Amino acid sequence: MVFHYPNGRAYDYHKNENHPSLVNKVNHRSINHNRSKTIYGNRGMSLEEEINESNQYYLSQGIAVIHKKPIPIQIVSVDYPKRSAAVIKEAYFKQASTTDYNGVYKGKYLDFEAKETTNISSFPLRNFHAHQVEHMRACQKQGGICFTIVKFTKTDELFILPADLLFKYWDEQDKSRKSIPKAEIEQLGYKLNYSISPRIPFLKGVDLLIANS
Amino acid sequence: MVFHYPNGRAYDYHKNENHPSLVNKVNHRSINHNRSKTIYGNRGMSLEEEINESNQYYLSQGIAVIHKKPIPIQIVSVDYPKRSAAVIKEAYFKQASTTDYNGVYKGKYLDFEAKETTNISSFPLRNFHAHQVEHMRACQKQGGICFTIVKFTKTDELFILPADLLFKYWDEQDKSRKSIPKAEIEQLGYKLNYSISPRIPFLKGVDLLIANS
Repeated sequence: MVFHYPNGRAYDYHKNENHPSLVNKVNHRSINHNRSKTIYGNRGMSLEEEINESNQYYLSQGIAVIHKKPIPIQIVSVDYPKRSAAVIKEAYFKQASTTDYNGVYKGKYLDFEAKETTNISSFPLRNFHAHQVEHMRACQKQGGICFTIVKFTKTDELFILPADLLFKYWDEQDKSRKSIPKAEIEQLGYKLNYSISPRIPFLKGVDLLIANS
Repeated sequence: MVFHYPNGRAYDYHKNENHPSLVNKVNHRSINHNRSKTIYGNRGMSLEEEINESNQYYLSQGIAVIHKKPIPIQIVSVDYPKRSAAVIKEAYFKQASTTDYNGVYKGKYLDFEAKETTNISSFPLRNFHAHQVEHMRACQKQGGICFTIVKFTKTDELFILPADLLFKYWDEQDKSRKSIPKAEIEQLGYKLNYSISPRIPFLKGVDLLIANS
């Protein structure tokens, strides 16, 4: 989710690199703006904005109901000015206990994350928090369809990374490598190509996940 | 979700009766405290706390994965003090575009609200926002299981109100009554009895919803 100041400027998460729950999020709008001389497939949109737009398309067409969850906040103090809206005066970011997106499609429960990397040949596991992986594992045990939409930003390539492939590398990271080779994502995941509507037709990949589950 | 001030006192939503997105929420902890001389089945817990505790039980037992969504907030200004966590200094409550709870159970997508009423013989439709009803309708079209956990606080009675029954009264409220008769909820919904673990065994009602869907 991109927050905007009243002057229209986007709120920049990256000022706050020390906050653990904000690291590795996909809000790279400001970064995209910096390279605006080149025309990219994503037209300056962050991966998160592209997915939100795609979800909006799927919802409006009656194809699926998928939403991004709000950012969890711990509220400490709230002001109630007369004749105007309540103002939160002190609050803190909390660690999320789940993934960012979930919803329903063809009777199936979907649960997923969206992650970007600037790496070329592998996807680093440090992009995930343990609680996100455990949440996906619990959902998959209940018959949910779990995955990550992975973007290699240097090449603008998108993939569906099935949760099983993530679990395999996650569980072996202490004795093995700490990233998933891109070659393996290409082989066992599903490549997604940008389109007009929706921007990211990720349900095509989900159809294949369902067919193979 | 109950927010606590640093002194442990619960943050009281009801100070803010004018804020539309906060009205009709189930955070009645403070109200329950006021009648603490009588022993009630809910032991001073709000309906929301009881459901969260039940979800925690279902999760820990590997029975279902259901979470309450965070409250949506519009962040306007954030401070980044040196060597400590980011502080949100100005933010506003936003209208949610979905229901409060969703998750996965036996391969099914669940989507529901939790609502209380002090009424005796009917459940007022003003407890619902149009966007919540439309969201449930969209989810049900995708094969999701949608319902409301309804509590009649005067008698401490709990029911599962199936979404179809809500839709029927919702769609006719302009030419007909603006509440659902309790007798009809008793007949077409499912009564829930408090238990030890989980506090509210609402998945028993969901099993019946699934069997009849």
